[in-house]
Amino acid sequence: MRPIQMLVLGGLTFAAALPWEATADPLRDKATALFKPVPATVSQTQGRTLTEAQIALGKQLFFEPRLSRSHIISCNTCHNIGTGGADNVPTSVGHGWQKGPRNSPTVFNAVFNAAQFWDGRAEDLQAQAKGPIQASVEMNNTPERVEQTLASIPEYVAAFSAAFPKAEKPVSFDNMALAIEAFEATLTTPDSPFDRYLAGDDKALDAQQKEGLALFIDSGCSACHNGVNLGGQAYFPFGLVRKPTEDILPIGDKGRFAVTKTSSDAYVFRAAPLRNIALTAPYFHSGQVWELKEAVAIMGNSQLGRELKDKEVAAITAFLHGLSGRQPDVSYPILPASTASTPRPE
Amino acid sequence: MRPIQMLVLGGLTFAAALPWEATADPLRDKATALFKPVPATVSQTQGRTLTEAQIALGKQLFFEPRLSRSHIISCNTCHNIGTGGADNVPTSVGHGWQKGPRNSPTVFNAVFNAAQFWDGRAEDLQAQAKGPIQASVEMNNTPERVEQTLASIPEYVAAFSAAFPKAEKPVSFDNMALAIEAFEATLTTPDSPFDRYLAGDDKALDAQQKEGLALFIDSGCSACHNGVNLGGQAYFPFGLVRKPTEDILPIGDKGRFAVTKTSSDAYVFRAAPLRNIALTAPYFHSGQVWELKEAVAIMGNSQLGRELKDKEVAAITAFLHGLSGRQPDVSYPILPASTASTPRPE
Repeated sequence: MRPIQMLVLGGLTFAAALPWEATADPLRDKATALFKPVPATVSQTQGRTLTEAQIALGKQLFFEPRLSRSHIISCNTCHNIGTGGADNVPTSVGHGWQKGPRNSPTVFNAVFNAAQFWDGRAEDLQAQAKGPIQASVEMNNTPERVEQTLASIPEYVAAFSAAFPKAEKPVSFDNMALAIEAFEATLTTPDSPFDRYLAGDDKALDAQQKEGLALFIDSGCSACHNGVNLGGQAYFPFGLVRKPTEDILPIGDKGRFAVTKTSSDAYVFRAAPLRNIALTAPYFHSGQVWELKEAVAIMGNSQLGRELKDKEVAAITAFLHGLSGRQPDVSYPILPASTASTPRPE
Repeated sequence: MRPIQMLVLGGLTFAAALPWEATADPLRDKATALFKPVPATVSQTQGRTLTEAQIALGKQLFFEPRLSRSHIISCNTCHNIGTGGADNVPTSVGHGWQKGPRNSPTVFNAVFNAAQFWDGRAEDLQAQAKGPIQASVEMNNTPERVEQTLASIPEYVAAFSAAFPKAEKPVSFDNMALAIEAFEATLTTPDSPFDRYLAGDDKALDAQQKEGLALFIDSGCSACHNGVNLGGQAYFPFGLVRKPTEDILPIGDKGRFAVTKTSSDAYVFRAAPLRNIALTAPYFHSGQVWELKEAVAIMGNSQLGRELKDKEVAAITAFLHGLSGRQPDVSYPILPASTASTPRPE
């Protein structure tokens, strides 16, 4: 497990001299004002300090198929650590092979988003973690059954006590979510070519990628896609200028309207975070677009009202490839055995 | 990754002086004649030397959901590294939420079995690996589609070339199976209490476990359950003396008869390997028995024709708990991204 260091978001400090010679670069100056590098470690979420015990427990729970009614679906099923933190199918397959309504967002760097889900209906990762476990089309479980499952396994009882030493009832659905959040906060992907460029390494991006970065800023992409995650911070109508076709923006999914019940929120979605976007096709909440360059062209059209030229699309796409960071190094957790009182799979 | 050392099966050598004082022990002498400890490392299968490049590729493939038609089922789905190398449900759930006919056997130490599957229809792990990928109720894929998938991803093309440098066509369904076998051969669980006892540590098993070991030998369990894996070496009728009830031995599954078409092979199965058996409930090919002590009692009745006393069942069960070894330490592999020519999930 990585050491926990203090994080000041947006104030990442480099302890040693940079190994490259940075030259004056107006593009970097513009970029640095809009974007922040992915920190290597996170030690707090909402002011709550994460402990090693919580992270270790959360890792077990993230991989724990017994959080699902069937005992075969875990968080990792749809947020696969090996495939960019997502499942890379149009919409996730859950209990009984039911297909969910939206594409699974990556868990990597999700701790830096202002809210979770495509419609932002969970304010943080702990709130998010409780959703799919209970959703009938996903893990199809109940908080009571989850608590009964975890309390039936002595090793989990001990791990919850160690992770939540002051809790009156350590094994709880709430604490499960807190532990999962603690682990997920470790799933960051620092050191992307873009972040190395931001830090002063002129050669980290090639000429086409720099051209793409300039276009990304100057065309207006960065108006919504900014910050650490180049997105994930605020809500915007999909189809701001022109509505995409119905296969990409299905009429039945009104996005944030379902959360706020406000008519102006119809077809409004959280700006997608773009970190590691090259690893997590297919794209958009409907998961119907497989090629990144096609997604870029659609965005140009629907959000900016511009037909981007092929060369521009290629440059922006090349830049987006530069957002793939160092993927998390996770050792597979060993999960404790069930006991006679553990609820059986259904 | 663990260093590769030479293995002489059954001839495990301890390089250093034993840290305990072994005393004369007739029970250990009997046990040593029947059982062998699990080796920590395996460097060859069928005389084929396993390379680091094959093992690394095999690990990626073991976790690769794109080997399935749906892109959501990998080897690890049913042979979960975190849960004893099995899925711990009665019978596995596969493509379209179809239920397979038999309980998923553990992949741990499977390299020491004489043959794979409950009916031994695959002579080794590479032959086994090809089965579930093609089975319509499991991963529901075809060799052609698998090859097309792997060949569409440049990182896999490079990894196959490194793993099979002399092959005319490195990316092949056969080489995929060889690489998976190479990785699976690393999934051994040495250092169980029983193995430490075999090696001379008197205190590794407690009094009840030693009583259970003596009963396991003297009652006749070890006639079928012997060798490194305490099973996995030969075939025996389930219900040798008395047929179990039909829920446990369903009429429709005739076991090895389906392989040999020989009437004497009706309801014949490979003796189940018992390593880590306490971690892989439910039991038997039908997966209908959840408690290990119940499985022990059923075996006594069906195979030995004996009503084991509660105390005997408890002792044998305690001994079987001593077969849980050190679980594999596996870092989660990062899988390369799909390309435009990668077949899409169906």
